[in-house]
Parts: sequence; structure tokens; C-alpha cells
Amino acid sequence: MSYQAPLRDMRFVLHELFDASAHCAQLGTGLDRELIDGVLEEAAAFTANEIAPLNRNSDEEGCRLENGQVSTPRGFRAAYRQYVDNGWASMTGPVEFGGQGFPQLVAFAFHEMLMSASLSFRVYSGLTEGAVLALHKHGSAELKAGYLAKMVSGQWTGTMCLTEPQAGTDLALLRSRAEPQADGSFQITGSKIFISGGEQDFSENIIHLVLARLPDAPVGVKGISLFLVPKFLTDADGAPGRRNALSCGAIEHKMGIKGASTCVMNFDGATAYLVGEANQGLACMFTMMNDARFQVGLQGLGIGEAAFQGALRYARERLQSRGLTGPVATDKVADPIIVHPDVRRMLLIQKTLVEGGRMLAAYTARQLDLEHGAESTEARKAASKRAALLIPIVKAFLTDLGQEVASHAVQVYGGHGYIREWGMEQLMRDSRITQLYEGTNGIQALDLIRRKLLADGGAELAALQEELRSVCNEALGQPALSGLARVVQARLDEWHGLAAEVIARCQHDAQEIGAASVDFLHYSAYVLLAGFWVQAALCAQRSLDAGSAEGDFYRAKLASADFFVKRLLPRASSHRLALLGGADCLMALRAEHFAF
Amino acid sequence: MSYQAPLRDMRFVLHELFDASAHCAQLGTGLDRELIDGVLEEAAAFTANEIAPLNRNSDEEGCRLENGQVSTPRGFRAAYRQYVDNGWASMTGPVEFGGQGFPQLVAFAFHEMLMSASLSFRVYSGLTEGAVLALHKHGSAELKAGYLAKMVSGQWTGTMCLTEPQAGTDLALLRSRAEPQADGSFQITGSKIFISGGEQDFSENIIHLVLARLPDAPVGVKGISLFLVPKFLTDADGAPGRRNALSCGAIEHKMGIKGASTCVMNFDGATAYLVGEANQGLACMFTMMNDARFQVGLQGLGIGEAAFQGALRYARERLQSRGLTGPVATDKVADPIIVHPDVRRMLLIQKTLVEGGRMLAAYTARQLDLEHGAESTEARKAASKRAALLIPIVKAFLTDLGQEVASHAVQVYGGHGYIREWGMEQLMRDSRITQLYEGTNGIQALDLIRRKLLADGGAELAALQEELRSVCNEALGQPALSGLARVVQARLDEWHGLAAEVIARCQHDAQEIGAASVDFLHYSAYVLLAGFWVQAALCAQRSLDAGSAEGDFYRAKLASADFFVKRLLPRASSHRLALLGGADCLMALRAEHFAF
Repeated sequence: MSYQAPLRDMRFVLHELFDASAHCAQLGTGLDRELIDGVLEEAAAFTANEIAPLNRNSDEEGCRLENGQVSTPRGFRAAYRQYVDNGWASMTGPVEFGGQGFPQLVAFAFHEMLMSASLSFRVYSGLTEGAVLALHKHGSAELKAGYLAKMVSGQWTGTMCLTEPQAGTDLALLRSRAEPQADGSFQITGSKIFISGGEQDFSENIIHLVLARLPDAPVGVKGISLFLVPKFLTDADGAPGRRNALSCGAIEHKMGIKGASTCVMNFDGATAYLVGEANQGLACMFTMMNDARFQVGLQGLGIGEAAFQGALRYARERLQSRGLTGPVATDKVADPIIVHPDVRRMLLIQKTLVEGGRMLAAYTARQLDLEHGAESTEARKAASKRAALLIPIVKAFLTDLGQEVASHAVQVYGGHGYIREWGMEQLMRDSRITQLYEGTNGIQALDLIRRKLLADGGAELAALQEELRSVCNEALGQPALSGLARVVQARLDEWHGLAAEVIARCQHDAQEIGAASVDFLHYSAYVLLAGFWVQAALCAQRSLDAGSAEGDFYRAKLASADFFVKRLLPRASSHRLALLGGADCLMALRAEHFAF
Repeated sequence: MSYQAPLRDMRFVLHELFDASAHCAQLGTGLDRELIDGVLEEAAAFTANEIAPLNRNSDEEGCRLENGQVSTPRGFRAAYRQYVDNGWASMTGPVEFGGQGFPQLVAFAFHEMLMSASLSFRVYSGLTEGAVLALHKHGSAELKAGYLAKMVSGQWTGTMCLTEPQAGTDLALLRSRAEPQADGSFQITGSKIFISGGEQDFSENIIHLVLARLPDAPVGVKGISLFLVPKFLTDADGAPGRRNALSCGAIEHKMGIKGASTCVMNFDGATAYLVGEANQGLACMFTMMNDARFQVGLQGLGIGEAAFQGALRYARERLQSRGLTGPVATDKVADPIIVHPDVRRMLLIQKTLVEGGRMLAAYTARQLDLEHGAESTEARKAASKRAALLIPIVKAFLTDLGQEVASHAVQVYGGHGYIREWGMEQLMRDSRITQLYEGTNGIQALDLIRRKLLADGGAELAALQEELRSVCNEALGQPALSGLARVVQARLDEWHGLAAEVIARCQHDAQEIGAASVDFLHYSAYVLLAGFWVQAALCAQRSLDAGSAEGDFYRAKLASADFFVKRLLPRASSHRLALLGGADCLMALRAEHFAF
């Protein structure tokens, strides 16, 4: 499948909506617009030429496990070497360990491209970046000195070892044990499942971050510690030496991302080093999980973009039937199917979800940057709260979007969508994991209500709504946009009221948290994206008013905003009504009466 | 994957809602309640013990093509022999050709079971039944005498050969040619794609029904004729003799239904016999397609039931986290996940969509029976119109439902949902084809508006709405149901108004047909199912009032109706609002401005 990064839209989002150069200057990086665009162009070439061509075959070939060794699909090894050699691996890594310290606002665009080109390929490096974050924040100086530089460069990769057969969502049930040794290290024994990249054939060493219990640990989640467990213990020079007592016992046979190895990892008294404080493992892991959740959101977005590109290409080429008001391509035997309103409906759903999702991703990336890099403590705190509010929406909504957009692509292709060689069904299969891992989307929705909405009585959400309201106020002043802005303005008011209603209900009955969660998350996401679409329309209108030479591009933005508000924002209504249906109708049936 | 037919719910739908024995008596069949229940129990045993166990392996093994021969997965041959020997193949076949002439209202339940047990296995026999219908209605006495009995028994199978690479939805583009021969037969030359069961290894002969053009045929769909083309020409005794000039050139590698062969069929001057009148092929094929579309709807329903069973089993067993209001299973390390409201939400969506879909399928099956078997011409005409209105809804909505319900099953399983051995992701992959074949769901929606709604100015739809309104009126008289009935009553009024609005818009602008179609179909389906849920609630309430010993069953029906109306019917709102968003926002962008 061919893939070309949507550079024009990325530049729109980065520069025109979120002023990436000013942002980079504020963070003290030396990136200006020209540099950013140069990097994105190189990234586009790399993903189009080196990564995307591997994706179709990786699905057919998959990973193989023989004698404890995992072979990745043809081409992954060589591409990974290029990925490291060209410095792509170190883009976001901390500067003091050889990283390039790119802000997320820039890096997210590259990462989206990787996801579009091959989700399987990206899985390995994505987790490494998360592991780098956790180790950088919580590891001892000694551990950092020993491991970080090579993980930042990508020479070594990292994994997250959380899940056990009996402990998925519920980490309190975790059983892996860590025994302290005389030399200050630990020995870990236990079995972990669903470990992405737990074993592969393209990095010198694999650094596992493993959750386990110390002998005297409290029960539940308060007794979990985080450990670094290398595949190869380092020798006196810091190079990979003796093989550690851990192995890949099996790889899973999955629906998709078949090029990404998903391993059962067995730790048999493996030498391990404590990361952070004892029994504080979950907090440490959360550093990594927040990043991972943002990255998984980008996976949904990236798959969505790839699916939109595929569907658009096919819809422009495939000749079938005539337009409803008469022939359009009179020189051809039939019209390209893009003339049909229902095909356009699917394409525009894809387009406006993906472009809207990109705005949300960029906005969130900006908050993640400011959380760490803003000048004042206050600004850092504000950004941190905003990012925390948005992460569950980014993770759940962008991955649900990826699945929907991929499914529309299959539908646009008709019967050919079901055939593997065309690539569309692979996108559906690959993206389906993103709704499950790093916390299912149901868990994200619970997080949004419990840890974000209820935790501060809706204050941070109200602040976000206020920000979007001021965008709408500005648009209300533009005659061409006032109709659009009024609809979104009314939804913002409705959203505010709905949040208050949800809070009141949840305080009254804890079951309402889980009864409202998924619908509230989706309701919020649609209104949020509508707000971004108003912002995009404002920006486009200004460029048109200024006589831009790219009139077609900006008019397409206005048309897209119009479509989104008229035909996708209505989904918020059904989520609102369903949520107001309440918890009682969910809890009424006893478990044994669901079927007879 | 284990599967047990939902016999109690099937009996509820057949006997309690639609009085199947009276229906069968009216049709002049000898089936009474006891006989029907006996057949369904045998069918349940057959599908659970003989078919369901083949399904998981059939996905891994798939079909193979070697030297023009297709091998089906292990066990399919033997199971098909049993299927024929036990008389399952001939259930709906015409009595004069050895069939058992079962009404669809009874047979649909068995067919749903087959779909649940193995969609791949069912594909072969389902198309044979459609071919029998077409041949029985349109074939000459000679063709019927030569082929029907063995197709009815299942000894020979049938296929539908419509699609060509350049002609999918648009059959006007069809190129296969039929040359008349001196003996009254024809020679067909051309290539057909996506032919389900085009070649397999378990029937003595395969009877292809092929669309092709005669030399002097008018262009477009008015120049298409239907032909019978056997794999083996029959000898003087009517037994399979000389091999005909046709072959399977390739099989497709698909997302799912891997046990069903999907063939490229090459006809190289193959001997063929005209079915029906020259140039009337499309009309003949529609006989088959209507049946096939109903069957594909059942595929969605069957997959949905299998997915619901899988998810429910897992949700009752999987222990993870504690309930939101405190521990429930205090003797266990965690609660079964069915205590969580969001898991219940997913299960209840599955349950009420599937049970609601079953009511819709049964109602439609009844109309299909009456279309052919009602006593008066008037009653037959009325049933025919009603069936024609419902078929596109059954096909599109039940298959969309199958996909959604399967996806919820994957979600309930968490990470395990993504692993092949658990079976849930296979249901998603298998069901995805049902939204595509026999006319994509977008095509069904166009059919609903163009050929059904606009064709009679909404009269037939209004009659259906009137019928549902009288159900609501009855429920309004029951204090326990009046709240439910009032909500649905209001939706029926809204539906009526919306249909009028759609008709007016489409008359004004033909693009509105395609702009409204999919949302109108979904809107209609949700309100329709709500009507059936009111009927189910009425029926359950009566049984409870009569002091039924099955109180739990009937109370579950009331709870399900409540859930559907509170939490699923709201989806109608978003479809209505989206539809009212109109065509202009779909048609505004030029094809070249969808991406830059």
C-alpha cells in the first residue's frame, strides 16, 4: 500500500493553528518553521519509501518463534537499522543522553506517519520511548548511566511488562515476585503475557520494565514495584554480556499487527534492578503509560489517515454506476464512485474525523510539552491538568476513530475491501488492538470520569470549555462562520450542563460512573472536535480574506467544518440521551438472567 | 468455540410473538408446535455438536487450490454429508422436488443456528437454496427435471455468478458473453469473481447460475440473461458426466470466512442453458437475491448471537477488579466483570440488538411465507410489499448489528479478544463480509429509499408504522408499560414525519436520496426494533400477569425492552439530525479537493 504523509494538513495544524515555531522557541529548542518543515519532509520520504512498503508483507509473514528466538518479518531488521542510523529513534529522547529533545508538537507528526506506514513496525520503538521516559524520571543515576543512552539511540529497545494471565486491568492481582539479593539487585520470577516486542531480532539488547512484588510488600496495588530487567546483563564496559534468566515462552497468534511480536515472557530468577522507590511501581509505570496512551491515540489517527488515503484513491479511480443526477464522466463507461453522495459521506466522515483528530492530537502534544517545559510552575501545572484531562479522550476516541475510518475504507472498496491484497482489511485488523491495549477504551472512559471530572468537580473541563467558547465567540463575529459557531456554542453550553449532571449522578450513585463513562467520553470528543473545527474554519477564513493563493485548501477546510458540524456532531445527541438513560437499566438484570 | 442455540428465545419469538403453529396451519403445512420444537432441538444438537466444533480450525486452515481443485477445511466434507443425509439441506426446498417445504418462519431459526455455528460452512448451502428458488421460479420444466431434485437434496450445490472485475454494484458493465448453439444450448465465455463455493470438494456437481450477454442483447442491464452452467454436464441418466469448460482460476485470500472458498471462475465456452426469458436475467436473479439478502441478514444475526454467548460466558467467569459500589463476590480475589456497568452496557447492547434482530427476522420471514402461501391474492400482495420494504433493512441493519456485536465481544474479552484462539476476533472478521456482499449496505439503503419509499410515496411504510402504533396503543393501556410505549409512540410519529421530509427532499434533489439513505435506514431500524420490543414487553407482561412459572425469563424481557428504549433507541436521534444535515455539505467539495 502506498502512503504519503499529509504534509499540507500537518503544516496547517502545526504552524497555522498552533504556531509551532513560537512554541518551540518558548521551550528553548532551536527549531524554527523551516527546520520543522525540513524534518517533516524527510520523515515523509522515510515513511513512504522505507516503512510503508514493508507493511503488507509483514501481515502475511508475521513473526516466528523458534528455540526462544523471534524472527520479525522480512525487511524489519534493515529498516530498524536505518531508523536508528538516521536518528529517527532519538527524536524525542532527552538531550543529555544523546536524544534530540524534539517537542511532542513536532514529533507527533512523525509518529503519526510511522503509524500510518506500519503499526507493527512502530510498536517496537514506541514502547522504547515510553521506557526511556520512565527510566529518565524514576531511575537511579547509575541505571540511567548504564542504559539510557543506548535506549535513546534505539540501539537497545524497551518493553513494558505489566499483564499476567490473571491480572490485566486489575494489577492488584499481580503475582510476579522479586527477591532481594545481597548485592542490591533482585531476582524476578513470574510470567508476563501480551508483551509487545518482548523478543525480536533487531536490537542488541532488550530492556524490560517489569512490575513485581517484593517479599514484604503490602497486598494490592500498593505493593507493586518497578524493575529494570535486561535481556543481556551488561559487562564491565557496559556492553551486552551474560544472558539473563528470562525467555520468550510463546508468541500470540493475533487478529492483526502480526509484524509486532506479542510475547509470553518467563522470568526465572532473572537479575533485576529496582527503578524508583519500593512499592511505588505503579506511579512510575504511569509516567510510561501516559506517554503510551498518547502514542496509542496516534496509532488510531495514523491508521485512520492511511485508510482515508486508500479509500480516496479507490473512490476516485473505481468506475461504477452513474451519478444520481446524471452522468458526470461522460467519456467513461461509468462514473468514479466519488460522485455518489453516500460514498462522499463515508469519505468525509473519514476526512473530518482524521483531520479533527489531528488537531486534538496536536493540541494535546502541546500540553505535554508545556507540562515539562513551560517557564512558570503555574503554566506547567495548568498544562499538566489539561493533558491529564485529554489523554483518555485522545487514547479512546482516536482509536475508536481509527477503527471506524478503517471500516469505512473497507466499505468504500466493496468486495475488494475484504481481500487481503488491497490492504484495507488489514488496517481494520491492525487498528482493533488500539482499542484494547494500554487500558481498554472502557477503562479510559472510567479514568476520564473518576480521576479527571470528579476529582476536581469539573473545574478543568470547564476551563477547556471556556477556551473553546472564546473561539466560538470570535467566529460569531465573522458572518460566514456565525451559523457554524452558533451550533457549536450551543453544544458547549449543553456539554457544561451534561458534565454537571454526570457529576451529580455519580455522587449519588457510584454505578453511574460506569454507566455514563463511555457515552460521556464520546459526547465530549465530538463537541471538542467541533470546537477545533471552528478554530480551523476561523483560521481558513482569515487566510481566504487575506487573499491566500491556496484558496482551494482553505475552502476545503470550511466545507469540512460544515460537514462535521452538520453530519457528525449530531452523534453527540445520541450519546447524551443514552447517558441520561442512567444506570438502573444496566444493573436491573441479575448475571444469571442475561440468557436462558 | 462452544455454541448453544438460544432455544428459549427462539420459542418465544416463534410461538409467543408470532404464533408459528397458526401460521403453519394457514400455509397448509402439517407443522404444529410440538413438531417445530422437536426440529429446533435436533437442529440445536446438530449445530452444537457437528458444525460449531469445525469453525475455529476452518479459519486457521482455510481453503486451498491445487490444480484447479479446491480443498475445504478438515471436517467440512463429512459434516456436509451429514447435513445432506439428515435432511437439513432440503428443509425449505419445494415439496414436488423432494424438499420439506418448511416455512421461513421456522427455517430461519435453523439457519440462524448454522450462521452462529460456522458462517463459512453455511455459505455453500445458503447459495444453493437461493439457486433452487430462482430455478424453480424461472427455469423450464426440462431444466427443473434435470437439476432441481439433486440441488434440493443438497447432493449438488449451486452458486451465483454475477460479479466481474469491472462490474460489481453496476451490472450494466457486465461483459461475459453467451453464444447460441445449434442444439438450443449456449456457450459462455467470460470471467467471474467473488464466486462463493465456485469450487469445493464435497458435492458431486456444482450448478452455476451465470449472468451473461447474448450477441444481440441491448446494452446495459436490459441485455443480461441468466444461464444454468453445470460443472459436470449430465449424461443420459442425468448423472454427472463430461466436465464442462469452466474452471476455478484462483481463490481469494480474505479477511475472514476462510473456510468458504471465494473463487475466480473462468468460463471458456462452457455449455449453458438459458433460464427464463432472454434479456430478463436480472429479474430472474432478483428472486435469488431477495432470498440471499434475507439470508445474509441472518448471517449478521447468527454471528451476533455467537458473539453475545462468548462475551456473556467470559464476563461471568473473568475475575477482575471490584464493583463500583464495593465487592460483590467476596469469596473471590476479584469480582466477575459482569458486575461492572460498562461491561453490562456492552452485553445489553449485544443482547437487545440480537433479540430485537431476531424479532425483525421472524416478522420478515413470516411475510416471505405469506408472499407465496397466503390464501388470497390480496394477502399475498400485501405480504410481498411488506417483505420488499423490510429486506434492505434486514440485510443492512442485521449485518451492521453483527459487526457491532462481534466488536463488543472482542472488547469484553480485553486483550484476549485480539487473540485468535479465543474466537471473538474471528467473528468480527467473518461478519465483516456480510456488510459487503449481496449488495453493500449502502446499496441496500438506496434500495430502501428509491425502490421502496419513493416508489409508493411512503404508503407501505405508513402501513407498517400503523401496525406498530396499534401495538403501542395496546401497551399504553398497561400501567407497567405505558412509559415505554409513550416513548416509542413519539418516535413512530417522528418517523412518519421524517419519511415525509425525506420524500420531499428527494423529489426536489436526487442527491438527497444518497445523502439520506444510510441514516434513514438506521433510523428506521432502531424505531422498528423499538416497536418489536414493545410487542415483546406486552407479551411478557401478559405471561407474568397470568402467573407464569418462568417469571425470570419474562422479567428479563421487560428489563431488556427498558434498556433498548433508554439506551439504544437514542441512536435514532443522531441519524435523524445527520440526515437533516442534507446533501449540500456532501456535494460541496470537488473530487480533487478531498486531500492536498
